[in-house]
Amino acid sequence: MNRDIKQLIKQLTLEEKAGLCSGADFWRTKSIERLDIPAVMVSDGPHGLRKQGEEADHLGLNSSVPATCFPTAAGMGASWNRDLIRKVGEALGEECQAENVAVLLGPGANIKRSPLCGRNFEYFSEDPYLSSEMAAHHIQGVQSQGVGTSLKHFAANNQEHRRMSVDSVIDERTLREIYLASFEGAVKQSQPWSVMCAYNKVNGEYASENETLLTRILRDEWGFEGFVVSDWGAVNERAKALQAGLELEMPSSAGIGDRKIVEAVKNGTLPEETLDRAVERLLRFVFKAVESKKEAVASDIAAHHALARQMASESMVLLKNDGVLPLRPSASIAIIGEFATNPRYQGGGSSHVNPTKLDDALKEIEYQLAPDGTVKYAQGCRIESDEIDGAMIEEAVQIAAEAEVAVIFAGLPDRYESEGYDRTHLSLPANHLALIEAVAAKQPNVVVVLSNGSPVVMPWIGKVKAVLEGYLGGQAFGGAVADLLFGAANPSGKLAETFPAKLSDNPSFLFFPGEGDRAEYREGVFVGYRYYDTKGIEPLFPFGHGLSYTQFEYLNMELDRTSMTDQDPLKVRVTLKNVGDRAGKEVVQLYVRDLESSVVRPLQELKGFEKIELQPGEAGTVEFVLDKRAFAYYNVDLADWHVESGEFEIRVGTSSRQIALTQNVYVKSSVTVYPVPITRNTLIGDLLQIPQAEAIAKEMAAISGFESMMGDNIEMALAMIKYLPLRGLVAFGQGKYTEEILDKDIQKLNEIFSTLQ
Amino acid sequence: MNRDIKQLIKQLTLEEKAGLCSGADFWRTKSIERLDIPAVMVSDGPHGLRKQGEEADHLGLNSSVPATCFPTAAGMGASWNRDLIRKVGEALGEECQAENVAVLLGPGANIKRSPLCGRNFEYFSEDPYLSSEMAAHHIQGVQSQGVGTSLKHFAANNQEHRRMSVDSVIDERTLREIYLASFEGAVKQSQPWSVMCAYNKVNGEYASENETLLTRILRDEWGFEGFVVSDWGAVNERAKALQAGLELEMPSSAGIGDRKIVEAVKNGTLPEETLDRAVERLLRFVFKAVESKKEAVASDIAAHHALARQMASESMVLLKNDGVLPLRPSASIAIIGEFATNPRYQGGGSSHVNPTKLDDALKEIEYQLAPDGTVKYAQGCRIESDEIDGAMIEEAVQIAAEAEVAVIFAGLPDRYESEGYDRTHLSLPANHLALIEAVAAKQPNVVVVLSNGSPVVMPWIGKVKAVLEGYLGGQAFGGAVADLLFGAANPSGKLAETFPAKLSDNPSFLFFPGEGDRAEYREGVFVGYRYYDTKGIEPLFPFGHGLSYTQFEYLNMELDRTSMTDQDPLKVRVTLKNVGDRAGKEVVQLYVRDLESSVVRPLQELKGFEKIELQPGEAGTVEFVLDKRAFAYYNVDLADWHVESGEFEIRVGTSSRQIALTQNVYVKSSVTVYPVPITRNTLIGDLLQIPQAEAIAKEMAAISGFESMMGDNIEMALAMIKYLPLRGLVAFGQGKYTEEILDKDIQKLNEIFSTLQ
Repeated sequence: MNRDIKQLIKQLTLEEKAGLCSGADFWRTKSIERLDIPAVMVSDGPHGLRKQGEEADHLGLNSSVPATCFPTAAGMGASWNRDLIRKVGEALGEECQAENVAVLLGPGANIKRSPLCGRNFEYFSEDPYLSSEMAAHHIQGVQSQGVGTSLKHFAANNQEHRRMSVDSVIDERTLREIYLASFEGAVKQSQPWSVMCAYNKVNGEYASENETLLTRILRDEWGFEGFVVSDWGAVNERAKALQAGLELEMPSSAGIGDRKIVEAVKNGTLPEETLDRAVERLLRFVFKAVESKKEAVASDIAAHHALARQMASESMVLLKNDGVLPLRPSASIAIIGEFATNPRYQGGGSSHVNPTKLDDALKEIEYQLAPDGTVKYAQGCRIESDEIDGAMIEEAVQIAAEAEVAVIFAGLPDRYESEGYDRTHLSLPANHLALIEAVAAKQPNVVVVLSNGSPVVMPWIGKVKAVLEGYLGGQAFGGAVADLLFGAANPSGKLAETFPAKLSDNPSFLFFPGEGDRAEYREGVFVGYRYYDTKGIEPLFPFGHGLSYTQFEYLNMELDRTSMTDQDPLKVRVTLKNVGDRAGKEVVQLYVRDLESSVVRPLQELKGFEKIELQPGEAGTVEFVLDKRAFAYYNVDLADWHVESGEFEIRVGTSSRQIALTQNVYVKSSVTVYPVPITRNTLIGDLLQIPQAEAIAKEMAAISGFESMMGDNIEMALAMIKYLPLRGLVAFGQGKYTEEILDKDIQKLNEIFSTLQ
Repeated sequence: MNRDIKQLIKQLTLEEKAGLCSGADFWRTKSIERLDIPAVMVSDGPHGLRKQGEEADHLGLNSSVPATCFPTAAGMGASWNRDLIRKVGEALGEECQAENVAVLLGPGANIKRSPLCGRNFEYFSEDPYLSSEMAAHHIQGVQSQGVGTSLKHFAANNQEHRRMSVDSVIDERTLREIYLASFEGAVKQSQPWSVMCAYNKVNGEYASENETLLTRILRDEWGFEGFVVSDWGAVNERAKALQAGLELEMPSSAGIGDRKIVEAVKNGTLPEETLDRAVERLLRFVFKAVESKKEAVASDIAAHHALARQMASESMVLLKNDGVLPLRPSASIAIIGEFATNPRYQGGGSSHVNPTKLDDALKEIEYQLAPDGTVKYAQGCRIESDEIDGAMIEEAVQIAAEAEVAVIFAGLPDRYESEGYDRTHLSLPANHLALIEAVAAKQPNVVVVLSNGSPVVMPWIGKVKAVLEGYLGGQAFGGAVADLLFGAANPSGKLAETFPAKLSDNPSFLFFPGEGDRAEYREGVFVGYRYYDTKGIEPLFPFGHGLSYTQFEYLNMELDRTSMTDQDPLKVRVTLKNVGDRAGKEVVQLYVRDLESSVVRPLQELKGFEKIELQPGEAGTVEFVLDKRAFAYYNVDLADWHVESGEFEIRVGTSSRQIALTQNVYVKSSVTVYPVPITRNTLIGDLLQIPQAEAIAKEMAAISGFESMMGDNIEMALAMIKYLPLRGLVAFGQGKYTEEILDKDIQKLNEIFSTLQ
């Protein structure tokens, strides 16, 4: 199928070209038979294939063909395991090939701005570096199978509340450092076949019509080579969207969008070359999809289930363990909670997968029991309601009291979090809370296993011995939980998001979800741990936190230099040792702290992580290479990433709040920023700090006689000079220093600076 | 001197008119002898007259004629006593008359955005209502004596860092509700003779050139009738400033500003009528000043000192008292700290007063001792340095150990806070900290008396029995402290600002003092307690807090209605009783809470306060009348204050965190806000909430077939409809609902709404 696409475009009518820019139906692109242009199919993902059968509803929310349901992104993000998510991607790609699906819609790289966002379960992290790394490797896996991905939702789609009309108002530095960075790394590393634009507006313009986002940043700056598809229904004005860089409207819009494109070309508001360019990108995709199609692929459902179990195991985070875990196989165990038999293992909405198999945690626990172990089960409360049922709780308390340990399966029912709407609080349902409190009152050894896509508060945390955050663990949730509870697997997940002590601690709390259609991201770059660390707020559990059944000791950190320029790479080698008695995996986290800055910066930022497996007593070394970006902030005036000369602290540890080793490095900037142009409002103090201007500034002050006029409050006098605009030499100079001298001095200074740029 | 000013202006040359728009020198307006236009003098205030003698330095920072130094505004704000500050104003006015000063520059009504602001000691509060009430009564007092005031610094001058160049970037609602409201009440109630514009920019424009502030809001909306004077050196471009509404440039600018005005009039960029209008306002002021001049006024220095002592006594806040206060006159007391003999009683900068007399706290304490009481004194540490002197501490510990109680005078030395620069932390000097820790380790009964203009953190709070916040108490600081320590006066001050547990808890922390010349007020309306309350952050001491030696019991609150419109006044009567054993004053605080709102609102806002004195066992009633503003927020779209219909909670208590009584009132809005104009992006959910549109919206959804297409996830389906823009009916309608029908429906809806406006 080595088609000459440019030639092909010449053979297309205007109407045909416009037609190619929207879907034929909910899931397919248009075919043009006379020119052998086939239709290809896209399907929802991203943690499993959701290919709808022919009887599908038109909004695409009903059931789909069976497919392996992996943990959702919230969980996979917590694995911090690039290789493993790439393997999951490979399996997903294989299933798409088997079902003749050309593009799996995902992964989602939106940042978790607020734990309330109903779709957080589909996103990886509050940190852009972690998020982009996980997205990049997910994409690599899927695309290695000849199946495309669609990185979504680009950009700043961080709430479900009024998601189709809300305007995400974000300062550019924050957009670059947080919300775009999460996409940037994935695009640059992995070239997704497509990027899906978001529903919302960004700084006043619909993402679907935002040329800055879709063309200038995505293509021109990042080098994206694929096509942009709208989120389903995200197109506002079709021609404007095309102009901005949105090639494919989905779903079909019943020909209305196509008609608008034709009209715009005819009336001259849309250049036909723009349409041709879009069609070219789409046709390249179509033929690439056709070429990549493998025949007779049968996906290995059993192997994929095993992979789902492994990913689930690494996704789960052991938040607390006062020695009660792992369970002894010969223990007498009370299993409580409906989620033990009827798991909540994925979220509601477009990502809802029809699993090939569904583990039952209760049965999986029974499998792992020793012959002398016992398990009793009580439902405890109903999932479909929040109502507290005294009799059910009583039954649960009874079996708990008779056992050595009680494991409570609690969490958020489907209706609590879903695509389409946000939560308004972080509580578990009242009946889950009552159940935990009642059981913990009678049984000192309580383990809580949570199923939820986003943080909950835990007023009961002091009353239980262990908490395993299961996230939405996919179809092998039950098996993975059993593995972890008994120690068949050693927990190695780390939180990819902060669990706050209370909702109001969250940085976006005061301004989420905004007023009307305006969501102001006033917290700026202080998202997640960047806020909690800098504000000194103690979270319930910090970013990067996660316990293991073994212990790791951080032995040593080596930097290959202590002084460098921002053009040099910095190699960091960290040696650690498993000092416990069982094999385990540790996520070594590297944070960078700018010790002095002219702009507000978070206390620290994640710039590297490596997951390493170590046997008992084994030591190992992980290596990081930090480049300019690891030290830079986005300088809006320079329109570039910028490192300010100064000391930076390299921090490595086992969580954002447990930093084991630190070391400083001096980084010298390759760019000097001058306060140009000099104007009558340039401050004398700013000039005094620049060697090339210092002498002139002092002379100016001397001529004006300003210094000699100061009173006897030395500190204030110094501050007055420092903060005085040049025009102040005239105003306070009482005639000695005139406007004419000032104008000449300003000219002189600007000439000096012009030679320095 | 009943001069015909319009006629006079006609006799002035262009140059003379321009000349009148700036000072003759640092403190005087220009005279024009040929027309009998005299010069008048203005002088710094606001808590005492700072009239410089002839040998004054040109920046106006050196010594001045003796005048009564009252507590600075930070303290007076804490008195919450309108009558008392009016009396202080009267005394200030009298001293101005005696010194032939026409205008006392002040009071300052800037809001305490951050405790770091170096000039906070000159401002009243973090709350605009309290601030404006205190400013209004200060103005009334001064002006009752025929002396003008200059309400400053208008507006949004909330930091000293880069104060002459920084741009305060503030959303309009915040500007209106917080930063302007503090001026608004004072202007409307008390018509200051002048308003002083600030150095900084507000939303991109220098306050001195900001027509929105100086004319549209100040004059057109608030009805200000006086003249606007620049802060000294605040003029950037003189003609532009005049156009914006700044009449008087200070100091003289040596004729440069005048020349620019003349040029602008000549080249037609400044209408001569604008200049005439400015000159008219200035001449009205000059002749008013002349008319108001009283001959041979001798101010009663002794009476003013007594008044300063009373104000100091009501300004101080008893933050903590574990029963150690009041002191027994027959006790053996260790007095420690240089501030006991060499007080810090005012702040540095333009407000620095040369006092008529200066109380010595140590001596005042000795006066109040019984014959069998003893006092020993140790300096403890030096004020001029932070260095810890072991020997001095040792001496202090020794006398403390031998006494029954130790009173430590600690606080911030002059260099820690001043006009001109901000603090960077909230700590006391290291030697004061070491002294407190050392003394508290050996003496269980420690009282700390603080001298400081703005909050400090108190890591030692748990180790001392009592803390008296003395603020900068003026020249009678020493006497007032003695009165309060022994119970000759009963503490009645209440914090006019939150004392945070740590600096990073402050709402502006992440963004103060901004980057370069940009200070973004990202916390919005959440300033001070509005933030701590809404975010659920425990302060060290909350807004409104202050202890007494007696106790008050809140008996009853009566509202004269439980349902009203926003045009009705609400009368609130609160009855309370002094249930302790000594006379005392209580500040009854009234807060309003909006229980449901479409915009983000603080948990509560101060809308009334009354200070009442009650004898032991006596009950009394205070009455509040709440009007629309007590319930309203500033609606930017309406460009007006707006009350949303709904329940409001009236909360009264003894501090913002100790609310004794609450009661609800339903307020019905007199304005209905519709989501007009209806566009293709209006949400269906928004239409469904309006009775007049509901039927059409339902019909639209029915025609599109949208509802019947939804899947089986009910919650998500409902959310999708709610958040769907009208255009979504076309996109998802698959041809049934067309753009043409949509256009017609939109037109129909707009017609309906046009009849409702």
